[in-house]
Amino acid sequence: MDWPRNVKIVEVGARDGLQNESAEVSTAIKIELIERLAAAGLPAVEAGAFVSPRKVPQMADSREVFQGLKRWPGTAYAALVPNMKGFEAAIEAGVTEIAVFVSASDGFSRHNIGCSRAESLERLRDVAEAAADRNIRMRGYVSCIAGCPYDGAVAPDDVAAMAEALVALGCYEISLGDTIGVGTAGQIRDVIERVATGIPRDQIAMHFHDTYGQGVANVLASLQEGIVVFDSSVAGLGGCPFAPGASGNVATEDVVYLLQGLGIETGIDLMAVAKTGEWISRHLGRPNAARAGKALLAAKQEGDLHGG
Amino acid sequence: MDWPRNVKIVEVGARDGLQNESAEVSTAIKIELIERLAAAGLPAVEAGAFVSPRKVPQMADSREVFQGLKRWPGTAYAALVPNMKGFEAAIEAGVTEIAVFVSASDGFSRHNIGCSRAESLERLRDVAEAAADRNIRMRGYVSCIAGCPYDGAVAPDDVAAMAEALVALGCYEISLGDTIGVGTAGQIRDVIERVATGIPRDQIAMHFHDTYGQGVANVLASLQEGIVVFDSSVAGLGGCPFAPGASGNVATEDVVYLLQGLGIETGIDLMAVAKTGEWISRHLGRPNAARAGKALLAAKQEGDLHGG
Repeated sequence: MDWPRNVKIVEVGARDGLQNESAEVSTAIKIELIERLAAAGLPAVEAGAFVSPRKVPQMADSREVFQGLKRWPGTAYAALVPNMKGFEAAIEAGVTEIAVFVSASDGFSRHNIGCSRAESLERLRDVAEAAADRNIRMRGYVSCIAGCPYDGAVAPDDVAAMAEALVALGCYEISLGDTIGVGTAGQIRDVIERVATGIPRDQIAMHFHDTYGQGVANVLASLQEGIVVFDSSVAGLGGCPFAPGASGNVATEDVVYLLQGLGIETGIDLMAVAKTGEWISRHLGRPNAARAGKALLAAKQEGDLHGG
Repeated sequence: MDWPRNVKIVEVGARDGLQNESAEVSTAIKIELIERLAAAGLPAVEAGAFVSPRKVPQMADSREVFQGLKRWPGTAYAALVPNMKGFEAAIEAGVTEIAVFVSASDGFSRHNIGCSRAESLERLRDVAEAAADRNIRMRGYVSCIAGCPYDGAVAPDDVAAMAEALVALGCYEISLGDTIGVGTAGQIRDVIERVATGIPRDQIAMHFHDTYGQGVANVLASLQEGIVVFDSSVAGLGGCPFAPGASGNVATEDVVYLLQGLGIETGIDLMAVAKTGEWISRHLGRPNAARAGKALLAAKQEGDLHGG
């Protein structure tokens, strides 16, 4: 098996992760989290969202987060925006890269943003135009690529259609998200192969949740399909609103541990990420869901104790 | 990718798992755990160990466990035995299948059982002869196949040598254990390919720990190498004595969820295993480490609440 030489990790803990954590997090802690991740070598960090503060209170201070953030050479910060109102607020806050999202399933689209898939694409048209006008890079998310909490099974054809529509809108990369974490390796490969008939594989990112313990295995299956960009979340931040108490995003530490083991370069200081994961977990009063993070820190402590 | 039609799961939670849990567990609870696993369709359940009660107090009541167990059609119970004393105690308790263990690394062998690898094989010779005389099936474990807490790296050649020696002693199947969970997919494939030069792949089982979050991914990599037997532990019972606080054995629920997703038959009722995992976790006062188990139960509860 020839593994790719380099893989890019997109860190989503400070947005997708925190958004699904119930503990309140101050603006200062968010900024510290993002800057620690940037300092650890993460090349891309989702840093906030310009969405309804009523619906997503955890992201209500994204303006202050972006205004307070130190820019870090080599790290791109991005913000999620759902519409023109969000886009304008993001620009005012100094955002230079945005992410937009749609769902591969109609049921999730209607429950999550109150409109059909077709309408969700239509709503993004003015955002896409405004972003192109201002040279703002735009990344696209397709959610529910392996199953939907409302519709059940999701057809790879539907995933491909939404991914191609986002590319047509101008997205430079499409992140395919198994939002509820139900997918297993064979299904993930089928989805990638279908989407790759319309989009080059190096423009496809995979975004896994560890709800059913499949996150790292699905990263492995995707690598075997030629995917070289993965979203992940420090300490596995984030939960699953459709399975309360279940695990959330696949942990950055677990993914980077796999990649290092395969000899794939990420530019990331894994121990620095592990320490950041432990720090934010303690701050949130939740268990650290990164297995590699916990093990590395425990092994280091044992070594330190014994002078190793 | 052609997946195998059937995979066999060897449930090790009641021995390898409990042995590394600090909570005291009564004989009655152990028997209930083992019988619930058998009823859920597990074809093989490690049910105890006839070892020094001073070194492994959790296994001190294995005689009572085996004597109290109802035999379940379709499930084989096995006991770990380190030497003739253990073998004789096992036979007295009615054990009909034993497991013996050696290490692929000399450092672990010396620390764990106080002798070199060569001596450990020598010590098993009389056990192997006695087992053959009595028609007792014997399974072999090789530990530290991907790394050793004392020696560091472990050569695939050393793993193969120990595995072949166990086959020569009469073991019908060799379980290759990544005892400290450090292996990643590429390394695991290399070990399997090396061992498979001397032993048929259908006599090789893989035994993973989730210490670094790689358990399920390593199962996937092993399936791709033609492996069809896996050890796993309900609720991920067990910890890692070399990384306190870290995760233990890969969870049966997570492995079976993967296999079901790939269309591979195991004969196991996954929901029954998930319920057993939640039950024993609560009994031990520890978090349930089976992600698929927690998610299945949470999704079921949501469905029940909404009449689904």
